[in-house]
Amino acid sequence: MAGKVIAGITISVDGYITGPDDAPGRGLGAGGERLHYWVFGGPWTYEAEREFGSMDGIDKEFYDDLTAGLGTGICGRGMYEAAGAWGGTNPFPGPLFVLTHRIEDAPDPATGFTFVDSLAEALEQARAEADGKDVSIAGGADLIRQALAGGHVDQLALSISPVVLGGGKRLFEGFEQDVDLEIDRVYASQWATHIRYTIKR
Amino acid sequence: MAGKVIAGITISVDGYITGPDDAPGRGLGAGGERLHYWVFGGPWTYEAEREFGSMDGIDKEFYDDLTAGLGTGICGRGMYEAAGAWGGTNPFPGPLFVLTHRIEDAPDPATGFTFVDSLAEALEQARAEADGKDVSIAGGADLIRQALAGGHVDQLALSISPVVLGGGKRLFEGFEQDVDLEIDRVYASQWATHIRYTIKR
Repeated sequence: MAGKVIAGITISVDGYITGPDDAPGRGLGAGGERLHYWVFGGPWTYEAEREFGSMDGIDKEFYDDLTAGLGTGICGRGMYEAAGAWGGTNPFPGPLFVLTHRIEDAPDPATGFTFVDSLAEALEQARAEADGKDVSIAGGADLIRQALAGGHVDQLALSISPVVLGGGKRLFEGFEQDVDLEIDRVYASQWATHIRYTIKR
Repeated sequence: MAGKVIAGITISVDGYITGPDDAPGRGLGAGGERLHYWVFGGPWTYEAEREFGSMDGIDKEFYDDLTAGLGTGICGRGMYEAAGAWGGTNPFPGPLFVLTHRIEDAPDPATGFTFVDSLAEALEQARAEADGKDVSIAGGADLIRQALAGGHVDQLALSISPVVLGGGKRLFEGFEQDVDLEIDRVYASQWATHIRYTIKR
């Protein structure tokens, strides 16, 4: 049985995946730290040390449920750069395919990152490597829009954090398709409301 | 004790309060019926008869909790028109103040509608008439943005329906302020995810 393609991302109440002026070292933009309070079990700052995965009960349950079935992931070059290539080594369980127009500066395969220059190619490789498990589409926004528009996404997992950012990168910016969803499950914590949807076809 | 000002509205996953081309008789725009499946306990169409308040358990619980404390309401002229003035009589428990630049064509006070030409005036009258109960700000989007930007809103109640509309009137269109929220309660039904927030100051 083929795995599902799951797009998952955190947004503000006004639909932004980053605040204004995101950059390496502050990948979630100005004020955007609040988007990921749920990831760290509470407030953190770009300056302070932080530990990934120090999540509260419900947030952790959501994250564990979401990631349990994942075999591989795909992200955009922008997200890869904004995350500082996660320090140079893929921190996720399976291979991560990075969609980019500039595959010539691909890192050593030992890092766990594979550069590919089309979504079709990324999906094909990610599905093959996932070996029946799910493929995650982690963002950025443009990649998720492209995958949704192409009909490649089976499930959407949105974490809505309790903040209005007033600017930044908007998940559905310029997206003009009508997509019907079904609510699979809601995980409600104090830091975010996680909603898992299935795309209806 | 003064009541709270509560802005409440239903949005799509991509943040629209109507689909494209809303008009009298189809106030939620093209495909926008799905926004209000939760109001009617399931699918309905603009053409078919429908009964307000035929809600499912969780949706009804959310609605009852929200409206239990309401004394009065404020809405914009556009919403009033799009709703066809609710057939000519205010269907809500308390007086409804309609914000409009054209107060000269105000309906008979017996309808339960009062036209006012500034938000300050609407808030003053609505608070006075609410007599310690809560004041609802029901939309449209521009009125909610104006009330939020002015710091008049104490709570935000968003019902997020499982649909991506791809166009229409966006709740946070052009809204550039940063607003911190706290999650009070989440009501999860199959038709919508209702999130009640308190505005942090």
